[in-house]
Amino acid sequence: MKIAVLPGDGIGTEIVAEAVKVLKVLDLPFEMEEAKVGGAAYEAHGHPLPESTLALAKSADAILFGAVGDWKYDTLDRPLRPEQAILGLRKHLGLFANFRPALCYEQLTHASSLKPELVAGLDILIIRELTGDIYFGQPRGRRTAVDGHFPGAEEAFDTMRYSRPEIERIAHVAFQAARKRNKKVTSVDKANVLETFQFWKDVVTEVHKDYPDVELEHMYVDNAAMQLVRAPKKFDVVVTGNMFGDILSDEAAMLTGSIGMLPSASLNAENRGLYEPSHGSAPDIAGKGIANPLATILSAAMMLRFSLQQPEAADRIESAVRAVLAAGYRTVDIWSEGTQKVSTREMGDAVVAAI
Amino acid sequence: MKIAVLPGDGIGTEIVAEAVKVLKVLDLPFEMEEAKVGGAAYEAHGHPLPESTLALAKSADAILFGAVGDWKYDTLDRPLRPEQAILGLRKHLGLFANFRPALCYEQLTHASSLKPELVAGLDILIIRELTGDIYFGQPRGRRTAVDGHFPGAEEAFDTMRYSRPEIERIAHVAFQAARKRNKKVTSVDKANVLETFQFWKDVVTEVHKDYPDVELEHMYVDNAAMQLVRAPKKFDVVVTGNMFGDILSDEAAMLTGSIGMLPSASLNAENRGLYEPSHGSAPDIAGKGIANPLATILSAAMMLRFSLQQPEAADRIESAVRAVLAAGYRTVDIWSEGTQKVSTREMGDAVVAAI
Ligand SMILES: CC(C)[C@H](C(=O)O)[C@@H](O)C(=O)O
Ligand SMILES: CC(C)[C@H](C(=O)O)[C@@H](O)C(=O)O
Repeated sequence: MKIAVLPGDGIGTEIVAEAVKVLKVLDLPFEMEEAKVGGAAYEAHGHPLPESTLALAKSADAILFGAVGDWKYDTLDRPLRPEQAILGLRKHLGLFANFRPALCYEQLTHASSLKPELVAGLDILIIRELTGDIYFGQPRGRRTAVDGHFPGAEEAFDTMRYSRPEIERIAHVAFQAARKRNKKVTSVDKANVLETFQFWKDVVTEVHKDYPDVELEHMYVDNAAMQLVRAPKKFDVVVTGNMFGDILSDEAAMLTGSIGMLPSASLNAENRGLYEPSHGSAPDIAGKGIANPLATILSAAMMLRFSLQQPEAADRIESAVRAVLAAGYRTVDIWSEGTQKVSTREMGDAVVAAI
Repeated sequence: MKIAVLPGDGIGTEIVAEAVKVLKVLDLPFEMEEAKVGGAAYEAHGHPLPESTLALAKSADAILFGAVGDWKYDTLDRPLRPEQAILGLRKHLGLFANFRPALCYEQLTHASSLKPELVAGLDILIIRELTGDIYFGQPRGRRTAVDGHFPGAEEAFDTMRYSRPEIERIAHVAFQAARKRNKKVTSVDKANVLETFQFWKDVVTEVHKDYPDVELEHMYVDNAAMQLVRAPKKFDVVVTGNMFGDILSDEAAMLTGSIGMLPSASLNAENRGLYEPSHGSAPDIAGKGIANPLATILSAAMMLRFSLQQPEAADRIESAVRAVLAAGYRTVDIWSEGTQKVSTREMGDAVVAAI
């Protein structure tokens, strides 16, 4: 088995190094191969997703990804910007199912913006469709408006779209995930305004017939953004499209107060996947050795479970992370009075020791 | 001057009645004319926005709107559903500028999901573009996919679009509003993925040249959804498109913990406007006399200020609302130990008495 290791930019290299250290200590039968991606790849090869990196990603059983992006690339033409790498990987590998758990660790409840009683024990799973919607829909571009409020004016446009099989497959993923959890799916749409999401709602409702043991609730996206703040624990599995999922999964992650702890997985139809922390490349703290590596280490655990058929190894990592939290080790983002402030590397070492 | 009064459905009739009572006691030179809208209009005339209601709205200087919608209309064909009335009014009256203040009243800080220190004194203004974007873009519908992941499959699609003059005018509205406040505008986009919002960002940046005294910051929508939870007080004016504004303004409203207190205004180029509470028709509590009328009463105050050139009367209403809060009157949604629980009507009476 082969893992493609793509550290990327900013804190990406630092946090991925710790996850690699943790994987190595498990002594499992797979090789790891590293390649550049994002801004780092642009610097080295003139493209954020060079052919060689894409080829490695395609040949691997799983990808361990750090983060990409830096303000210094903001002025590049869009196809050359770091985030195109992640969009390209999703598209070329067909990574349509994005798992974004929003979990509140007992010891970190106080770090949330929300009152402790609203988030204590929070455990929701946001499943975001990742290869459709307005992210990839054609046509898109600039043109002269022929109708609308200002015919003749310059305008820009994009196409939102979902086909039946795209909705069906992500709905199946959501219902199956809910079966292993609290058996409730909230499908988020905007059926009152969008044709795409009326269709989404209709198809999810049809797929639900195969899962009578799972409760299905429909919610408008504006209401979902509110209910996440008001009573996040009412959710179990949330399934939605690419655009709404981008917004809601980040909102939910921030509710926990410890986005530095949250892993993610993006899977294709063969369960091959890309695993990355939910947070970004944080160029402001890059190179300082203070970033929290736990989201990346937990992403490696998801990778072992979902793509590499090593559930016991995954459990070992997750238990080790709980143990280091219980022992009071904290990187600065989750530090509070009475706990021990550690560096990125020290946190990685602590997890290794706990394993 | 004429005010069109459109109570709508659910709690709409109850809360609008209180706002009308407050307006009457001010004894100002305008007439009010009532008409049905939403589900109520569908029942009476077979359409959520009958010609007669639209004609009244067009002839009025301002519209006082309650709320529309009830689950019982969910199965109607989309053009007949209550929310089409509000979309129709926006479109036919050109109400492109939606003002959604998110304000945290001192006495109600504790009602927020967020820790008090994060929301005490919160005062942000979300300005949402309301007649463009994917809400009204053509083409839209269902068809057979010719490309994408599943060519040949059934798909649904919508068109997102913004023209230069549409972005320019809402940007001017935002910068001018910021000038009267804390001189900071956050423009929310998704320029890293969408052509429409790269254009949005470019045009807002150009318009900003006319407002060197106002600070402009650009933020991706997913990050904005996070920053609203993390540190809402860092925002002053937020300007964004119709779809992102729908989501973020509801998220921001819920952060205050007292959505029953939040008014909104939707203005056209001539400053004529529609004024409505930020909350919905709440069919579950309709007819019980317990809904909070303050958001609607405060919407009437916004109406006096923005469309009817009666700033002093607006001040009088707003002071009266602060006075009733200070006196401890609370409808059930904002009630807490030690305050006096009142009905919808009693709350309206208290505001009238305070005026
Ligand atoms: C970087 C960007 C293109 C990306 C997205 O919008 O999907 C990011 O926000 C994410 O959620 O992974
Ligand atoms: C009812 C619906 C069409 C509407 C919208 O999406 O604009 C509502 O959510 C709002 O924000 O006023």
